[in-house]
Amino acid sequence: MLKQFLSVDDVADPLKLVEEAVKFKVQPNAFRALGQHKSLALLFFNSSLRTRLSSQRAAQLLGMDHLLVDVASGWPLEFEDGATMDQDKSEHIREASAVIAQYCDFLGVRCFPTLKDRDHDYGEPILNALKKYADIPLINLESATRHPLQGLADMITIREHKKRDRPKVLLTWAPHPRALPQSVANSFAAWSLACKYDLTITHPEGYELDPTITYGATIEYDPYKAYEDADFVYAKNWSSYRDYGQIASIDKRWMVDVNKMKNTNDAHFMHCLPVRRNVIVQDEVINSAKSLVIQQAGNRTFSAATVLKNLLTS
Amino acid sequence: MLKQFLSVDDVADPLKLVEEAVKFKVQPNAFRALGQHKSLALLFFNSSLRTRLSSQRAAQLLGMDHLLVDVASGWPLEFEDGATMDQDKSEHIREASAVIAQYCDFLGVRCFPTLKDRDHDYGEPILNALKKYADIPLINLESATRHPLQGLADMITIREHKKRDRPKVLLTWAPHPRALPQSVANSFAAWSLACKYDLTITHPEGYELDPTITYGATIEYDPYKAYEDADFVYAKNWSSYRDYGQIASIDKRWMVDVNKMKNTNDAHFMHCLPVRRNVIVQDEVINSAKSLVIQQAGNRTFSAATVLKNLLTS
Amino acid sequence: MLKQFLSVDDVADPLKLVEEAVKFKVQPNAFRALGQHKSLALLFFNSSLRTRLSSQRAAQLLGMDHLLVDVASGWPLEFEDGATMDQDKSEHIREASAVIAQYCDFLGVRCFPTLKDRDHDYGEPILNALKKYADIPLINLESATRHPLQGLADMITIREHKKRDRPKVLLTWAPHPRALPQSVANSFAAWSLACKYDLTITHPEGYELDPTITYGATIEYDPYKAYEDADFVYAKNWSSYRDYGQIASIDKRWMVDVNKMKNTNDAHFMHCLPVRRNVIVQDEVINSAKSLVIQQAGNRTFSAATVLKNLLTS
Repeated sequence: MLKQFLSVDDVADPLKLVEEAVKFKVQPNAFRALGQHKSLALLFFNSSLRTRLSSQRAAQLLGMDHLLVDVASGWPLEFEDGATMDQDKSEHIREASAVIAQYCDFLGVRCFPTLKDRDHDYGEPILNALKKYADIPLINLESATRHPLQGLADMITIREHKKRDRPKVLLTWAPHPRALPQSVANSFAAWSLACKYDLTITHPEGYELDPTITYGATIEYDPYKAYEDADFVYAKNWSSYRDYGQIASIDKRWMVDVNKMKNTNDAHFMHCLPVRRNVIVQDEVINSAKSLVIQQAGNRTFSAATVLKNLLTS
Repeated sequence: MLKQFLSVDDVADPLKLVEEAVKFKVQPNAFRALGQHKSLALLFFNSSLRTRLSSQRAAQLLGMDHLLVDVASGWPLEFEDGATMDQDKSEHIREASAVIAQYCDFLGVRCFPTLKDRDHDYGEPILNALKKYADIPLINLESATRHPLQGLADMITIREHKKRDRPKVLLTWAPHPRALPQSVANSFAAWSLACKYDLTITHPEGYELDPTITYGATIEYDPYKAYEDADFVYAKNWSSYRDYGQIASIDKRWMVDVNKMKNTNDAHFMHCLPVRRNVIVQDEVINSAKSLVIQQAGNRTFSAATVLKNLLTS
Repeated sequence: MLKQFLSVDDVADPLKLVEEAVKFKVQPNAFRALGQHKSLALLFFNSSLRTRLSSQRAAQLLGMDHLLVDVASGWPLEFEDGATMDQDKSEHIREASAVIAQYCDFLGVRCFPTLKDRDHDYGEPILNALKKYADIPLINLESATRHPLQGLADMITIREHKKRDRPKVLLTWAPHPRALPQSVANSFAAWSLACKYDLTITHPEGYELDPTITYGATIEYDPYKAYEDADFVYAKNWSSYRDYGQIASIDKRWMVDVNKMKNTNDAHFMHCLPVRRNVIVQDEVINSAKSLVIQQAGNRTFSAATVLKNLLTS
C-alpha cells in the first residue's frame, strides 16, 4: 500500500510500520528473495554516510540490485521550464529525472535545502520535479525539509526501549557552530506525533519550527521544565525557521548535560549523528548506558529495509 | 563471435545485433545465469552518468560481478615507452592495463579526446594501449572518436519506430556553446551506414566529419533540403574535424525547431542526451510525442547487455 | 582461528595460509556460498586502486555483500577524548567506528601515515581506535606501518616461483622522488621472516627500518654483495625511519638494473606497484620474463580472499 516514501504522511499506519521493522530485524535475511531482479537507484545531490550505507545494506537484505549516483560534487541542472540553456546548465531536470528512471524500479534521492529561501526549500523543488518526471516510486533520503527514514529509525528505537505505552518524548534544540537544516527535527516531530507520543519541543525563542508540522506538540521554552518526566531526550540543532536559515543564538546552556538529564524519568538520550560532543551533548550523557545513538544508526538499516519491503509488495 | 566492442567494425552483422537487443528487452531477466562468476570492470577516465548506469544495469541483468574504477579526477599515467618516470607520472599504462585485467574478465573504458591534436585523438592512444597490455576483451564506453554503445542504442530505437525498411535518417549538427567531441556523430553515422539506412548529414561549412567514416552518406549543406522526407532527425553538436576541435561557427538557425520538422516525413526526434533545450532543440520538438530521447536512454541498457551477452558467449 | 588481520602477527601459521591461497586460486569460485549474507565494508581514508579492486573481487568470490566508504577527500574526525567539538571536526572516531560496524560484519580499513611523527604513526591511532570502538573483525588494507595483504600476496608469488625450500630473498631500497611510507617494506620483511626465508635487506645508510621488525634479517649496505645468489629481488622505496619521514638521499645507483641482476641466482624481480620505470627499476628488468609484478597484483585477490575465508570460518 506504500506508493512512495517522501514523508510520514505517505504511511497509512506508522506504528504498524514500526512493528514490521522490529520483526524484520529479528530475521534480517528472510526477505532476500523479495527484491530479486528489482533495482534501486540512490541519487545523492549531497554527500552521505549513514543514509547511503544503510540504504545499500537494505537493498542487499531485499536481494535488490542497486546503483549509486553521487552528484554531490555538482550536476548543473536546469529547473526552469522554457529556459534557453546556453549558459552553465547542461541538462534539464525533465530529462535527468526520466533518464534515471530508465535504469531502476525505485529511486531514492537526497537533496538538502539552500537555507536561503524558505518558500523555495519548503516547496521541495527537486523532490517534486522527480515526482513529476520520473514515473517510479520515490524514497526520501533526506530532502530540504524532511528526513523520514531517520524518523522511522527513531521510532523503531523508541519502540524497542519505551516502558510505557505513551512515552514522554522531548525534542530539544542544542547548540552548533553552523546553520543546519530543520529536516531531522521536522521528521522527528512528525513521526512522534503520528505515533501519538506525548511530544514536547524545547528551544530558545526564535527557533520555533513550522507550526503546521509541530501542531499537537507542547512547546516549552524553559528547558528545565521541558525535561521533567521525559522518557526520551532527542537532541538536535536546527537553524531558524522564522528568520529562515539564520542562527538566532548559540546559547551553550542548551547542551544536553547530566544535570538536565537528572530532571527526567531516567530518560534515554538520542541523536541522529554525527554529533559534536560537549557542544550538543556532554560526554557523560552520550557515553552512558542510557545513550541510544548507536542503536539509532543500526536501526537505519531496518527503517530503509522495511520501506523497501513495503514498496516491493505494494 | 564478438571478440571486442570498440566500434561497429567489430560487429559482423549489426542488424542482427539490433534484433537480438530488441528480443533481450522483452525478457530482461532471461540471461541472469549467463554471466555468473564473470567480472566486468568499468574504467572511467571521464565522468559518466548514462553510460555508467546502463553498463552497471547490463552487468546486473547478465548476473555478472562488476567493479567501478573512476579516475576522472586524475590518474597520472605515463604512455611513453622508455620514459624515466622521475616527474609527476606515477604509473605506466603497461602496468596499469595489465593490473586491471587481473581483476576482471571484461574491461569497459571511457576516454575522451583532447580536441587539441587530431592525429593523437584519432590514434585512440588509451584504447590501443589497453588493447596491447590488457589481455581481455575491451568494451568502448565512449572513446576519443567513437561511442558504439550509443550507436547501437540508437539503432535499437530506430528499429522500434521505423515504418519503412530503409528509413531516411538525418544527422544534423546543432549549435552548442562548447567544443564537443565527434564521437557520437561518428558512431551514429557509422551504425546508420552499417545498417544500410539512407543517411543524410547536414551541417554548416567547416563541420565536415571524417570522410572515411561518413563515406556513403549524403552531405547536404542546406538544412531545409536535408530535412525533406526524413523519418528520423538526430541532432548533435560536434566541433570541427578540419580545424580540429575548434568551433567553426555557432549559427542558431541550425537549432531543430517545429518549422524544420514540418518539412519531414512526420519524423521522430532523437538525441543522445544530455541536451541543451532551446539551443540544440526547441521545447516544442523535444516535448512532443515524436521525441524518442528517453527511449534512447532506456535502450542504452539493452545495447550494453546485448554486447555483454555476445562477449560472454564468444 | 583468524580473529583479525592487522599484521602477520595475527596469523598462527603464515606458510599454511600461503598454501591455502594457492589452492583457492585453482578453484576461485569454490567458496561463493561461504560468505552468503555476510557484509564487508571497505573504509578508505586514502585512495586505492589495487587494494580496493582486489578486496571487492575477493568479497565477490566469497559471495559476500560489500560496501565502499571512500573518505579520501576528507572526513574531519575527532580522535581526542573529552574534546569540545566546536571547531572543524564534525564526528568523533567513537561514533564513526561504532556506526560503520552497524552496517557490516567485517571492516577493512586503509589509513596512511603522516610521515611527520613516528610515535604517532607507529602507534597506529586509526586502527587502534577502530579496534576499540568497532566491535567486529578488522582487516588492514594498508595502515601507517603495515600492508599485510601485500605481504601475503608477495609470499604467494614467491611460493609459486621458488626453486628451493628456503630461497634467498633480497629487499632492496630504490630511489623515488617522494617520501613514501615504510609499510610495504615492513610487511615484506615481516612476512619473509615469518616464512623463515633467508632475508637480506639492502639500502643506503640512513634508511634502516624498525629493527624490531627486521630482526633476523641480514642488513647489507653494499648492494653488489647483497644481490649475490638472490632468488628474488624485491624493490621498494621508503623514507627514513630514523630521520622520520625524511628522504635521506636519492642515490640513482640503487635502481634495480640488468647489471645488478646478473649478480643473482637468476632472480625474479618483484615490486608491489605502481612502479616508476627507470627510477626504481630499469625497463629491461621489469619487461623481462623474470618479472613477477603482474602476478603479484593478481595474487592480491587471493591474498584478500583467503583472509576473508579464514575470518568467515573462525
